Amino acid sequence: MTNTDERRTGVWLIGARGSVATTAITGCAAVTAGLHPATGMVTETPPFATAALPSLSSLVFGGHDTTACPLPKRAEHLAAGGVLPHGLPTALRAELTAADDEIRTGGPLPGDTRTDDELITAFAADITAFVRRHDLARAVVVNVASTEPAPAPGSARLPASSLYAAAAIEAGSAYVNFTPSTGLRTAALEDAARAAGLPHAGRDGKTGQTLLRSVLAPMFVQRALTVRAWSGTNLLGGGDGAALADPAAAAAKNAGKERVLADTLGTTPEGEVHIDDVPALGDWKTAWDHIAFDGFLGTRMVLQTTWQGCDSALAAPLVLDLARLAARAHEAGLSGPLPQLAFYFKDPDPGAPAALADQYAALLAFAGRLRNAR
Amino acid sequence: MTNTDERRTGVWLIGARGSVATTAITGCAAVTAGLHPATGMVTETPPFATAALPSLSSLVFGGHDTTACPLPKRAEHLAAGGVLPHGLPTALRAELTAADDEIRTGGPLPGDTRTDDELITAFAADITAFVRRHDLARAVVVNVASTEPAPAPGSARLPASSLYAAAAIEAGSAYVNFTPSTGLRTAALEDAARAAGLPHAGRDGKTGQTLLRSVLAPMFVQRALTVRAWSGTNLLGGGDGAALADPAAAAAKNAGKERVLADTLGTTPEGEVHIDDVPALGDWKTAWDHIAFDGFLGTRMVLQTTWQGCDSALAAPLVLDLARLAARAHEAGLSGPLPQLAFYFKDPDPGAPAALADQYAALLAFAGRLRNAR
Amino acid sequence: MTNTDERRTGVWLIGARGSVATTAITGCAAVTAGLHPATGMVTETPPFATAALPSLSSLVFGGHDTTACPLPKRAEHLAAGGVLPHGLPTALRAELTAADDEIRTGGPLPGDTRTDDELITAFAADITAFVRRHDLARAVVVNVASTEPAPAPGSARLPASSLYAAAAIEAGSAYVNFTPSTGLRTAALEDAARAAGLPHAGRDGKTGQTLLRSVLAPMFVQRALTVRAWSGTNLLGGGDGAALADPAAAAAKNAGKERVLADTLGTTPEGEVHIDDVPALGDWKTAWDHIAFDGFLGTRMVLQTTWQGCDSALAAPLVLDLARLAARAHEAGLSGPLPQLAFYFKDPDPGAPAALADQYAALLAFAGRLRNAR
Amino acid sequence: MTNTDERRTGVWLIGARGSVATTAITGCAAVTAGLHPATGMVTETPPFATAALPSLSSLVFGGHDTTACPLPKRAEHLAAGGVLPHGLPTALRAELTAADDEIRTGGPLPGDTRTDDELITAFAADITAFVRRHDLARAVVVNVASTEPAPAPGSARLPASSLYAAAAIEAGSAYVNFTPSTGLRTAALEDAARAAGLPHAGRDGKTGQTLLRSVLAPMFVQRALTVRAWSGTNLLGGGDGAALADPAAAAAKNAGKERVLADTLGTTPEGEVHIDDVPALGDWKTAWDHIAFDGFLGTRMVLQTTWQGCDSALAAPLVLDLARLAARAHEAGLSGPLPQLAFYFKDPDPGAPAALADQYAALLAFAGRLRNAR
Repeated sequence: MTNTDERRTGVWLIGARGSVATTAITGCAAVTAGLHPATGMVTETPPFATAALPSLSSLVFGGHDTTACPLPKRAEHLAAGGVLPHGLPTALRAELTAADDEIRTGGPLPGDTRTDDELITAFAADITAFVRRHDLARAVVVNVASTEPAPAPGSARLPASSLYAAAAIEAGSAYVNFTPSTGLRTAALEDAARAAGLPHAGRDGKTGQTLLRSVLAPMFVQRALTVRAWSGTNLLGGGDGAALADPAAAAAKNAGKERVLADTLGTTPEGEVHIDDVPALGDWKTAWDHIAFDGFLGTRMVLQTTWQGCDSALAAPLVLDLARLAARAHEAGLSGPLPQLAFYFKDPDPGAPAALADQYAALLAFAGRLRNAR
Repeated sequence: MTNTDERRTGVWLIGARGSVATTAITGCAAVTAGLHPATGMVTETPPFATAALPSLSSLVFGGHDTTACPLPKRAEHLAAGGVLPHGLPTALRAELTAADDEIRTGGPLPGDTRTDDELITAFAADITAFVRRHDLARAVVVNVASTEPAPAPGSARLPASSLYAAAAIEAGSAYVNFTPSTGLRTAALEDAARAAGLPHAGRDGKTGQTLLRSVLAPMFVQRALTVRAWSGTNLLGGGDGAALADPAAAAAKNAGKERVLADTLGTTPEGEVHIDDVPALGDWKTAWDHIAFDGFLGTRMVLQTTWQGCDSALAAPLVLDLARLAARAHEAGLSGPLPQLAFYFKDPDPGAPAALADQYAALLAFAGRLRNAR
Repeated sequence: MTNTDERRTGVWLIGARGSVATTAITGCAAVTAGLHPATGMVTETPPFATAALPSLSSLVFGGHDTTACPLPKRAEHLAAGGVLPHGLPTALRAELTAADDEIRTGGPLPGDTRTDDELITAFAADITAFVRRHDLARAVVVNVASTEPAPAPGSARLPASSLYAAAAIEAGSAYVNFTPSTGLRTAALEDAARAAGLPHAGRDGKTGQTLLRSVLAPMFVQRALTVRAWSGTNLLGGGDGAALADPAAAAAKNAGKERVLADTLGTTPEGEVHIDDVPALGDWKTAWDHIAFDGFLGTRMVLQTTWQGCDSALAAPLVLDLARLAARAHEAGLSGPLPQLAFYFKDPDPGAPAALADQYAALLAFAGRLRNAR
Repeated sequence: MTNTDERRTGVWLIGARGSVATTAITGCAAVTAGLHPATGMVTETPPFATAALPSLSSLVFGGHDTTACPLPKRAEHLAAGGVLPHGLPTALRAELTAADDEIRTGGPLPGDTRTDDELITAFAADITAFVRRHDLARAVVVNVASTEPAPAPGSARLPASSLYAAAAIEAGSAYVNFTPSTGLRTAALEDAARAAGLPHAGRDGKTGQTLLRSVLAPMFVQRALTVRAWSGTNLLGGGDGAALADPAAAAAKNAGKERVLADTLGTTPEGEVHIDDVPALGDWKTAWDHIAFDGFLGTRMVLQTTWQGCDSALAAPLVLDLARLAARAHEAGLSGPLPQLAFYFKDPDPGAPAALADQYAALLAFAGRLRNAR
């Protein structure tokens, strides 16, 4: 429901022309227009009805990207690949064009001679201008760009994801990192966010294999079954598959995937995780997990899972959830990391439980706290 | 750890020469002797250390069965099939023989002319004599017999499982129903148990497909994903496969399997559950589940799971858990149904939550309550 | 390539407005128009280039159906469900409308008082008129209607599928049965076909689980591995799922599925086959197979397969293949059953090999024979 | 059946104390003694009954190894892991001890200062002495050692597997390479084998994933379905898992795995193959394959397979087959590579077909040729 007196909230997406951003923008418009139910959006379920979150219709989208393909065209590509329903990009052309008008060129691009500080200042100015232009109550910056390689140790430069995070702080915006990239996860940036009174959450959205692991691993613990080996293979096309074919990028991703097992099981079982680039799968991904475990008297047993999902369709509603929750946390005066949002992340902020059920309970408690905040 | 002053507790198994009973008796002896860790026994994990449960070494086994194959021989069969470790039946021959000596003939056998009351009295006398013979503090009756067909409506006779449940009450014993058979689930028997001040718990142990469903279904709900269809096939050999090839018996079993979905999802999705008798699998079972669900904007996705486990090895540690918990509940003066033990059952007593995480939390709270009881 | 002098060939589809027929008609037009490659059409591969088959552009479609939804609308439904590419029904509207104009009402409908002979005569007249109207060289009748229940023994009436088969004979047309229904599989009709000099082929198109079984079962035999149990579950939506939820219809289907195992393995292994109606899957089907086999020294091993396909897209190119091959066989003067087409069927005509590789070799040999025929 | 006049045949195993060799030696004795059927041995099926192969009872085992664990003890380990039936190592202790007495120390061991020629001479002397000691008609050398890393280009030394192959030639023995190591696959050694009139066959036994691929890939081709991506993950424990965790060794193995797809499909589809070392699986391996393919009108479909087998139990009967076939080929005067044995190999000798059905036909033809040889 839109409150006519409600001031609008900005959602500034890093990677604003990517699959996830395009799906989030299209989907927000589709749900607002009543064309589709809000399937996959946790913040549209009853427990969040009174948490005073910004309404979907109050969200205004903009962001940074380094590619030029306009959002309406990107949405048509996604519809052709079965990610978006046919006809939806046409029906929502006006909303997509409006969001595309709010996308600014990110960076640093090859050959860019600007220093880190110059880039941060430029990015922050883009965000600030966006907020002013639309008279927004506030904006949330959400990183949904392709995974960047793990930063080289000792590099004098900040990774791009951290430049954007610094810009968010400079612009006075809450920040959410939906990718495994560094983003705000540096001591200096975390201090700066806290000093600026800004909340932030991350990192690495939990949309498939790790989501499953966060419900299955606790089951083994609760039943006192001994996990011997947990192996996994992910097949994904789209941009993410190509990005993660870079071993350095995959390493960042896998660290998050393995964390849930170590945190839950108390030990890291045998087994590897592979991420394969399979362009033929387009935006669809398949994750196979093989779990060898011991039962009573050492009996050997096996659980296998196969998850076949559309990456963007899994991520987009969570991006909208996070933008709303972070904006409301900002409004409510919360600052620093938000481990209460661990439900959404592979590699959550410190202090969060590892089991999905516990993370969900923490999220519900957080909704209650937002309800009672000013 | 055995407390030398501890009075012993009887575990009276209905179906005492079946695979589950044989594995439970063998395994209890193996863990007591330090030959194997207590993998799969929840009551041996830290949260239960102070719940004053009877120690494993204090358990004395007996029971009813209608077959004659002695336990040591049954255990050898299980070892040949890979259910029990090789050598274990030989190492524990004395314990198995001792338990076998405490097995009495059950019924009614074909041609048996005794009335229901006569059978109940005879069974109760067997239990009472067992308690006296070993000077037990108390005994718990646990039904691990083959699933019986759903009782014909309007039958004047009680199903066999209920005769044993009535005998448990008459003998002053707590009662646990690990099968989908009727057992104590009649208004008259529930009243009788309460009047006698006896606790009871049931029914239908949750060891594979339904265990998985009780962690996966909440995930879909918490993530606001719409389950369209949930289909499943179970392949099992052993006695249970043959028993459940009887459509009437399978119907009883499937009712429990479907309950977790209805209770969790709030609706019954499309899809069927099959239970196939595949003798070649022996005591091993394979459960395949196929879950079709909708994500954001109606995108269709699929999760498949394959669970390959040994039925007896999954059930036996839970049977030991339940016997200890029910005995301690009896000692602590609790009576009536124990929905706090829903963690163990497909079709738990009324008032229990459906999600495994919530059931585990309830079980931990129950352990705390036992700790503080006299 | 169309031969401009080529006389056209009729394809008369029983169930002409169903998913398979609609996909076949749409696809033939799309391939002819160069909009799509001929993926899935075996007769468009090099070994068939010189077999003098009627060209795709020479095929004219018509048929019987008992539903009224016109083909262009049916095709739109299939495109919405992802079976046909978006835009294709619109692009081929003229071809679909032309085919729809050639569809006549089948039967018997409820309340129809016509005798079997009257129905056969009426159906044959429809086919004959179609051939004359388009000055066709010949027509092939192909049954792609929903599976009918196995006929009650001793029934005085012919099943509908046999009425159509009799009409094909009366109209002088070759006949192909792509379904498990009876069709021409009666002694009287087989005699009549032979007497009329007409070729026929059947039955029950092999498009998924049985296709896989026909390559996997020979592997076990060739490697001297002992199959202990072969279990399978099929999930399918669409009309076929509903039709096969009728146990009598499923029984007909399963007989074909089991035949390949018995014929290849020389024995029927343990295990069942389930066909579940899951409307949420639409035209998509999933088949899970679990094969328990013994290796050297009795070691137990397992192979599992999961096949996720679109039923109509799997069947349609085979229907076009069969229509072309049967038409050419008719032209070449062949009559009686065509076990050489066993490659396409679950339950082929007598004398056919059971392994797919052998069936493929037989098909190639048949192509060579057609090449050399007049 | 043993022919009492039959001269015995030697089977000289490189890696004679490994899992595969131990299983082959134990299994040969067990089948000879009538303790087990010859499941998995193709040469014991009817088409080979008249090929004049050496009988199983006529085989004498020996070989090289660099480990000291005697065969009876190794067999006990395998029985504990479920690879060999319990009790079998004890029952066949005499046969295992006899074979162990014929095992000589291989090499080069670390610190070994012998030149390649010295090593070849020493190995050949071991084989020659074995043949003389037992008055054997001939011996076949079979490489079943752990996969060695791909040789460094330009190395002056021969890889160990080639030293043994050269020794086989020097000793006048046929040679079979069941591993992906180089073995006889060098121009110089192939020339030498031909000059010596010796047959040889290789390489890399086809026991799981590649076996499946060799039956599934032809299915897609025959059905004109377009394979877009073929991805695979192998989980294996045992020594092989550890050896293949070395990327250089895995590269050798994967080359063979991918060859079957390229040879059959005529193109290499997208997708990778992973080999993970999972010690918890022991001698058991699990291979998951995911095949994305296009059907009619570009419809996207997926086949997945999961193969769970015991590596040694799959390999051992094929090793016995190959030893018998190579010995008989030697006796029959054949020399050079034997592409007729492609049925057994991932990376067969040049000129072999890629589809399993064609390879089986070639094997049967070869059996016929052996039948008619002197």
